[in-house]
Amino acid sequence: MAAVVVQKYGGTSVGDAEKIRRAAERVATTRRGGAAVVVVVSAMGDATDRLIELAESVTAAPDPRELDMLLSTGELVSCALMAMALRDIGEEAVSMSGAQAGIRTDAAHGRASIIGFDPAPVRRALDAGRIVIVAGFQGVTEDSDVTTLGRGGSDTTAVALAAALEAERCEVYTDVDGIYTADPRVVPDARKLARIGCEEMLELASYGAKMHPRSIELAAWRNVPILVASSAGGVPGTLIHDAETEAESMEVANKVRGVTYERGVARITLRAVPDRPGVAAAVFQPLAEANVSVDTIVQNASGERLTDLSFTVARADLRAALEVTRRVSESVGAQQCVSNDGLGQVSIVGAGMQNAPGVAALMFSALADAGVNIEMITTSQIRITCIVDEPKVDAAVRALHAAFELADD
Amino acid sequence: MAAVVVQKYGGTSVGDAEKIRRAAERVATTRRGGAAVVVVVSAMGDATDRLIELAESVTAAPDPRELDMLLSTGELVSCALMAMALRDIGEEAVSMSGAQAGIRTDAAHGRASIIGFDPAPVRRALDAGRIVIVAGFQGVTEDSDVTTLGRGGSDTTAVALAAALEAERCEVYTDVDGIYTADPRVVPDARKLARIGCEEMLELASYGAKMHPRSIELAAWRNVPILVASSAGGVPGTLIHDAETEAESMEVANKVRGVTYERGVARITLRAVPDRPGVAAAVFQPLAEANVSVDTIVQNASGERLTDLSFTVARADLRAALEVTRRVSESVGAQQCVSNDGLGQVSIVGAGMQNAPGVAALMFSALADAGVNIEMITTSQIRITCIVDEPKVDAAVRALHAAFELADD
Repeated sequence: MAAVVVQKYGGTSVGDAEKIRRAAERVATTRRGGAAVVVVVSAMGDATDRLIELAESVTAAPDPRELDMLLSTGELVSCALMAMALRDIGEEAVSMSGAQAGIRTDAAHGRASIIGFDPAPVRRALDAGRIVIVAGFQGVTEDSDVTTLGRGGSDTTAVALAAALEAERCEVYTDVDGIYTADPRVVPDARKLARIGCEEMLELASYGAKMHPRSIELAAWRNVPILVASSAGGVPGTLIHDAETEAESMEVANKVRGVTYERGVARITLRAVPDRPGVAAAVFQPLAEANVSVDTIVQNASGERLTDLSFTVARADLRAALEVTRRVSESVGAQQCVSNDGLGQVSIVGAGMQNAPGVAALMFSALADAGVNIEMITTSQIRITCIVDEPKVDAAVRALHAAFELADD
Repeated sequence: MAAVVVQKYGGTSVGDAEKIRRAAERVATTRRGGAAVVVVVSAMGDATDRLIELAESVTAAPDPRELDMLLSTGELVSCALMAMALRDIGEEAVSMSGAQAGIRTDAAHGRASIIGFDPAPVRRALDAGRIVIVAGFQGVTEDSDVTTLGRGGSDTTAVALAAALEAERCEVYTDVDGIYTADPRVVPDARKLARIGCEEMLELASYGAKMHPRSIELAAWRNVPILVASSAGGVPGTLIHDAETEAESMEVANKVRGVTYERGVARITLRAVPDRPGVAAAVFQPLAEANVSVDTIVQNASGERLTDLSFTVARADLRAALEVTRRVSESVGAQQCVSNDGLGQVSIVGAGMQNAPGVAALMFSALADAGVNIEMITTSQIRITCIVDEPKVDAAVRALHAAFELADD
């Protein structure tokens, strides 16, 4: 049995007939190189958005099952077109819907999870020498209802297939050619990483990069190497894979790997809250019920039995968040509830960073030297995040990129 | 178990969000009247044409299996939207693809035939009080490949479901409000028929009316009454059903029911062909191989052992037909091969017409009175067709409509 390679093409990579033909050429090249190829495709360009608009023109509240039925057609279209394009250049290819490919999910319409995969239909087609094109982003429940995996779900489809078929690697083709040390629009000398660990990628993905976090988690768990590369071709991409040998591990250890940022951050602070059990729950439970997604949470002691509780939300959610927070403010005994909607955040990311002394100190001094005041600090195993004034975000990113010498290979 | 009603909505009846909502209102009204309702939908407006264009932008010769995968999405979209629209007005509705609805076909992609239907999934949903929306025009093979039934296939889906579910009737909503005694654009006082037999409808359908012939054949065989009506509502349609009682039979017997016509007819005549076995086969076999569809065939004796063989084809096929016919002309010993590409045809249709003396004579004299020369004549059990000069078609249709008093109820 030939080695299996899974290639995933995002919406922009199959955005029109010309791009589909170009992607088909790449698939054919890989196939002619001797690999058994499974292709996962997203819907063309803005097809999904157009289907959502169509649903909203019919009803203000589309039924989730029916919305999945509708949205799943976007991937079926690009799937069939890709198979046609491959046959046009002499390759045996066959398209499969999520259902036909044996991708079984739970019934959480719009954000279903893959709970099983019967590799038999895909294996049979591969064994017959065919290239198999699978519609990404979709599956089918036990009751034969069509489901979608939610935005970015095609990444998850690709990694799940790669894992189940024990693929050599999962190649993800998109409109960016890899993972960078920072956003090149902000940092002109940002450098493309040849390789990055899954956890590091997870932190970068959370802050705006293009792989869906669920797919990275799955790749880490099932040890699937992912190559993110440009569908335009010509340049090497970034390999997302955890180190497997000590040499590989040395290569990336104890280093800051990249700088990420976010704009449009708002902060709410409850001042002088009595420091007693149940306060956090009293605040965050109603926020969750109001569907407000809370990002960073920091609690600062401000006196002996009083504490300041701050958290950030997306600026768009501030109004809803404030409404809820002011309501509970009194009941938890806070003296004041204040907000600031002009913030951003910058983070440095790198596995093993916590074992490298002085990383945090270097971050804070670099920001100070750049005249950037730090409003809040949070840290995780592989990330340090500072909340700063939004107008200072670009300067902060550039200062950190320089301080950690990320432009140097 | 409540009586089952199948309602089919054509592409123009689900052409946009507004029309889908209007169709949903009608479905809901039928459901609230106590019937169990199965809805069959076509793709929205020109969606199928746009998908074909998309395929042709990717490859000059789309693979038939993949084209079916692609085209089937058109009906899935309107299917899901219809279910959403019904839920929006408080009805329990569920959409089903051909595969989900248990519609099994052979593997003749692009023109598949329904070979089986497992009513269990639809029945289960109906028993649960739901309206079931089934994607028309599609099914699935034994190997789970998606197929399409070819143009007009949604009619067949609707009638097949009505037959298998023993529906009370199959209602077909379209942009015309029924079957007329003649084309109202040609004959201003053409009258809508309240009722027509299946065979009569079959002849009318062959000459340009809107129901797919396969669906009428199926309806005749399985005794499914079809009501053709306008999706705009407000006026009664035409019931297509064979007479079941003597009274019903009397009502329609021995009457000419309608006049149909066609333009763009071309005729080829092989003159003075030796009248011996195998001549017709020698001519029509190569035509079939060249994919030329032959319509009317007439053989006129012109001498003792010589005959004239004439046949008609669509004008667009004349060039290909002539090429083939000239090639075989010599080998069958014809003296001459001539053609005329400026013809049309008019037909009168009516079951039991053959038992009504004088119908043919009245037709010919009406045409003569109108100054229409008859080029060829053919007859079937329920139809008499005359080939005439194309510029005389309108006058011929009007003359026949008047002669047989079709404007009178």
